[in-house]
Amino acid sequence: MTDPSTNMRLKLPITCFILQIILIILFGVLVQYDEDTDAKKHHHGNHSESKSDIENDFYYRYPSFQDVHVMIFVGFGFLMTFLQRYGFSSVGFNFLIAAFSLQWATLMQGFFHGLHEGKIHIGVESMINADFCTGSVLISFGAVLGKTSPVQLLFMAVFEVTLFAVNEFILLTLLGTRDAGGSMTIHTFGAYFGLMVTRILYRPNLDKSKHKNCSVYHSDLFAMIGTLYLWMFWPSFNSAVTEHGDPQHRTAMNTYYSLAACTLSTYAMSSLTAHDGKLDMVHIQNAALAGGVAAGTAGEMMLTPFGSMIVGFLAGIISVLGFKYLTPILENKLKIQDTCGIHNLHGMPGVLGAIVGAVTASLASKEVYGEGLEKVFPDVASGKRTASDQGGVQAISLAVTLGMALFGGLIVGFILKLPIFGAPRDTTCFEDSLYWEVPGEEESHEDQLTTVKTEESDKLNS
Amino acid sequence: MTDPSTNMRLKLPITCFILQIILIILFGVLVQYDEDTDAKKHHHGNHSESKSDIENDFYYRYPSFQDVHVMIFVGFGFLMTFLQRYGFSSVGFNFLIAAFSLQWATLMQGFFHGLHEGKIHIGVESMINADFCTGSVLISFGAVLGKTSPVQLLFMAVFEVTLFAVNEFILLTLLGTRDAGGSMTIHTFGAYFGLMVTRILYRPNLDKSKHKNCSVYHSDLFAMIGTLYLWMFWPSFNSAVTEHGDPQHRTAMNTYYSLAACTLSTYAMSSLTAHDGKLDMVHIQNAALAGGVAAGTAGEMMLTPFGSMIVGFLAGIISVLGFKYLTPILENKLKIQDTCGIHNLHGMPGVLGAIVGAVTASLASKEVYGEGLEKVFPDVASGKRTASDQGGVQAISLAVTLGMALFGGLIVGFILKLPIFGAPRDTTCFEDSLYWEVPGEEESHEDQLTTVKTEESDKLNS
Amino acid sequence: MTDPSTNMRLKLPITCFILQIILIILFGVLVQYDEDTDAKKHHHGNHSESKSDIENDFYYRYPSFQDVHVMIFVGFGFLMTFLQRYGFSSVGFNFLIAAFSLQWATLMQGFFHGLHEGKIHIGVESMINADFCTGSVLISFGAVLGKTSPVQLLFMAVFEVTLFAVNEFILLTLLGTRDAGGSMTIHTFGAYFGLMVTRILYRPNLDKSKHKNCSVYHSDLFAMIGTLYLWMFWPSFNSAVTEHGDPQHRTAMNTYYSLAACTLSTYAMSSLTAHDGKLDMVHIQNAALAGGVAAGTAGEMMLTPFGSMIVGFLAGIISVLGFKYLTPILENKLKIQDTCGIHNLHGMPGVLGAIVGAVTASLASKEVYGEGLEKVFPDVASGKRTASDQGGVQAISLAVTLGMALFGGLIVGFILKLPIFGAPRDTTCFEDSLYWEVPGEEESHEDQLTTVKTEESDKLNS
Repeated sequence: MTDPSTNMRLKLPITCFILQIILIILFGVLVQYDEDTDAKKHHHGNHSESKSDIENDFYYRYPSFQDVHVMIFVGFGFLMTFLQRYGFSSVGFNFLIAAFSLQWATLMQGFFHGLHEGKIHIGVESMINADFCTGSVLISFGAVLGKTSPVQLLFMAVFEVTLFAVNEFILLTLLGTRDAGGSMTIHTFGAYFGLMVTRILYRPNLDKSKHKNCSVYHSDLFAMIGTLYLWMFWPSFNSAVTEHGDPQHRTAMNTYYSLAACTLSTYAMSSLTAHDGKLDMVHIQNAALAGGVAAGTAGEMMLTPFGSMIVGFLAGIISVLGFKYLTPILENKLKIQDTCGIHNLHGMPGVLGAIVGAVTASLASKEVYGEGLEKVFPDVASGKRTASDQGGVQAISLAVTLGMALFGGLIVGFILKLPIFGAPRDTTCFEDSLYWEVPGEEESHEDQLTTVKTEESDKLNS
Repeated sequence: MTDPSTNMRLKLPITCFILQIILIILFGVLVQYDEDTDAKKHHHGNHSESKSDIENDFYYRYPSFQDVHVMIFVGFGFLMTFLQRYGFSSVGFNFLIAAFSLQWATLMQGFFHGLHEGKIHIGVESMINADFCTGSVLISFGAVLGKTSPVQLLFMAVFEVTLFAVNEFILLTLLGTRDAGGSMTIHTFGAYFGLMVTRILYRPNLDKSKHKNCSVYHSDLFAMIGTLYLWMFWPSFNSAVTEHGDPQHRTAMNTYYSLAACTLSTYAMSSLTAHDGKLDMVHIQNAALAGGVAAGTAGEMMLTPFGSMIVGFLAGIISVLGFKYLTPILENKLKIQDTCGIHNLHGMPGVLGAIVGAVTASLASKEVYGEGLEKVFPDVASGKRTASDQGGVQAISLAVTLGMALFGGLIVGFILKLPIFGAPRDTTCFEDSLYWEVPGEEESHEDQLTTVKTEESDKLNS
Repeated sequence: MTDPSTNMRLKLPITCFILQIILIILFGVLVQYDEDTDAKKHHHGNHSESKSDIENDFYYRYPSFQDVHVMIFVGFGFLMTFLQRYGFSSVGFNFLIAAFSLQWATLMQGFFHGLHEGKIHIGVESMINADFCTGSVLISFGAVLGKTSPVQLLFMAVFEVTLFAVNEFILLTLLGTRDAGGSMTIHTFGAYFGLMVTRILYRPNLDKSKHKNCSVYHSDLFAMIGTLYLWMFWPSFNSAVTEHGDPQHRTAMNTYYSLAACTLSTYAMSSLTAHDGKLDMVHIQNAALAGGVAAGTAGEMMLTPFGSMIVGFLAGIISVLGFKYLTPILENKLKIQDTCGIHNLHGMPGVLGAIVGAVTASLASKEVYGEGLEKVFPDVASGKRTASDQGGVQAISLAVTLGMALFGGLIVGFILKLPIFGAPRDTTCFEDSLYWEVPGEEESHEDQLTTVKTEESDKLNS
């Protein structure tokens, strides 16, 4: 396992150091505290003079931020530990690319939406947005899991974060799209970008490491830690950057019910599609989360718990069917090797969420939203556009996102194909020991006994 | 393991689909956003006109809600993974029945306490209450763990949630009982209900799967994840639905000290009751939590940290003694096979908590509580009843709860005994592979070496 | 493994019971609810008359408290589970000594900083401070991990908490030092105290249990749970007791960026210092956290994200170099057996944090902080001292802390050397089965097959 092409001794340190030093310099030049974070502005600004401490945005959003943060690092990280010999890489590379992406996202998102006299102003909301953008990269990571070097992943993150910020800018700023939980900007974008990348990186001989591309008993339990944290905190994810007050409250609740309904349909479908009725951990670990993805756009709207449950219910069904029937087709016919099945968890449910959002937006009215309309659809409330126009914009946004993701993934896929990044060979995919010092196995008592026995039988024979 | 009676292929999907569709229909007919969640009401209601965004109930309770949510899904789920071959079911069935129960509880609790002109109004407080009710079902799950099919568990949840809501209605609404952390409504109810169910489902030949009814090294570590999350977040659990301000603050703090004292007495007793002084993981995983249960009723009262510590200290002692001496008696004499020992973690400490609550309530006075009396004992503050009356009501409530739980468990136990639910046979209890696709073992290097050695010795001999 | 000297049957229960009973008595005599926790004071006090419920300190600090609480129990506990056969003790003794320490710290810290007419007033802030002090004890635990009995650890906690409170009193109260995240009071103190204790407890023959002083595959994954929770919640740790409003907000953000930068430099250095470029889990698990430690003092200051990233970047580099080159020297030359490498995670980064804090403080000015200067440097704002004086005080505080830690560790180390505490022998270090009932190994299918094969070959031979 000391293949010089995959030796990271120079590639990884150089990449990390250069990227981090660029980040530090750009932060030094461009980034400033925002009004709620700065010691001076907080106390002297016009706006905040009458603002009491408790109205600092920190107290509205920090608990949600921490929940999102857990989803990014523990949720995504452990969800991918299901592979028997790729736990270090799943958690560890997730950690590395997330730590990079959140810094880079702060700059890219700030550059596109948040420049104030040439400076990027940051606070808890920008931290959440940076984590969101990071989430998108981690979704794509799920598609290429086990088949990429950490340097490849870092370069993927460099490009994907940039494209994410462009797409987000087109949607949220130029088009006035509503997508607080990111069904489009995060999930659809991350999924189709990742799927295109893995398509370009197609390995015809991946079955050489097929025996490692599966779980063992304890790796599935570790993965459930990831699943549950994603599931529990998804209400915080979808509501983290919605407006203060009822929108945050409503979004969290809609997501809660969407996920609950999704869980039941996931269990039902998992059992129904198995010839012996046995539940499949892959479905439970992934499809039960589709309800959160699908409530990402409409969650802040007056979707009602009833509507949320229908959305979640459908998302669970679609997702399990995808794992069971679509993933093999994608792999065999379209040559898309999607390690974690992100198409089923983020791709299709993301598209569903976008459609639900478009329909719900087109039905918005002053009658239902009252004065609250302004918080959810400012353009509709101000009369700038009608609700059905808003619905149309939402639909267009989905198309834009798909286009950006697929095109971006195509380009980035070809870049990542360059041989300089130290990708694993087909025989050493899904294997930690390529990039990590891996400790030996624990000696179990049974093994020791067996060894003794064998030695004794050897002696007897000699 | 393809026993047709335990094949879930039709039973589980049909049950999940029917239950979920009923839930969706009832939500459509009955459920509405409450004032703090609705876009219109939040901005137009009389009450909230002067309410700033930060005073939305969301900001008072959402962090506590998320902590409770973690306890329900990760806390209870992983606590039960201590069994060596039942981790998928522990976490997975916990997940399924919790996702169902929280929806059903929203309806049942709303029906009994929250109807507004025929509609159930929901928000973050109802979400917490739904999680609480779910907790009660999961407690009962602990008693029957390893011996029930998922369909049985879903039906148990249907009935238990309903009875829980009735009991809660009698206590909180009819009797005016105080029980914010649910020593009675959640723990005592869930425990004695579950114990009665497992009594009715008694399996005389359970020792056929006895060798699987124990832990292995890593399963005990997984269980500690559950324990610690329950332990850490219990202050949030007990304070999640108390009144705003000092009661939330005080409840969290009382619980914190109760748990800390309980942990020391648990370690002491675990070592003291072992002939070689070695600590027993079962005690640490469970008894150290008894302090949270026992502070469930009196936590919001002026119990003082001193009082809380005494309560926790006693709870830990009782709980370890229960595991050591009472559980074997319950099993051998009363035929109560209590897999997780819920009688020691939730039963006895719940009763202790109810008694402590009754005593503390009867000592309440304007002198100690000042104007704050109204928030904790509104009936005493308004002069509707005296403090000692309140204490009496608290004591009666314990009796009512025990009666409801035992009677309910009796009926439900007999229902669950029907052969249609696909319960495991005595030989296949505590075994994931009955209901789950279970992956193979990881091949360890030692095993491979041993195999090679053996083959060589075979060759030598032949 | 039934060595009478390490039998805890009497030692541990007696220690726990006596300590807990003393705690309960002292709490009864000395401790009262503070203004925001008490039912009466909260509604009648002069100060709080106009205070709305949402301005109760609970809502400012409780989410941060819970994050800190998770760091203490799950973060520290699981971080130490990397040892293959010491997981029960790592998590379990961490749990025990933390539960004791937080109670004892409430008293000691209250005694030194919080007496009001002879009474200790407690609330959420004192709970956070108690958890902080506990953190310091757990850092020291990391140095002696695997080589001490639980009774030894409890006695270490008794003394260390006391000395911590004295040192904290000298710094925060007498000297007016700023150290919100505890680079000095928590990390430097805990680290050098622990290093001195382990120096005094030096075991020349520790290599007798060397084969157990390492990780296995799954134990490293468990440890990553600890790492990630520490990493994610460190922003809450550093900001938990800073002033309300912008200081809390700013501290969390500075820490976030410091940690992100630290992660990249950690990965870079880990790969660079390995001859084959492979990442080392020890570095990832520990050094990636050094950025949080190093931002502990200056985090609340106007360090800027740029400054924070430089600090984190350096901390990661220093920490990996420490693990790689300094730890072996400390062990071989200075006889400091530092199991977890706390010198690299808490020692050097703590000192770095103190220095950064001193420099940043000396640069503080009204120009940069505006009116906010009062919240961060009250003595400078009031004109009591200049900014460079404050910087000097910060530097002196580091020296005081180092002195207190080393001297305290010396004394306590000799106390812990007494033979009465039941320390493990050199051959039974790093071994759970000394103090715990340890379950058998799971029987794996391969083992069973091998056994059968061997038996068959035996038969053939006979």
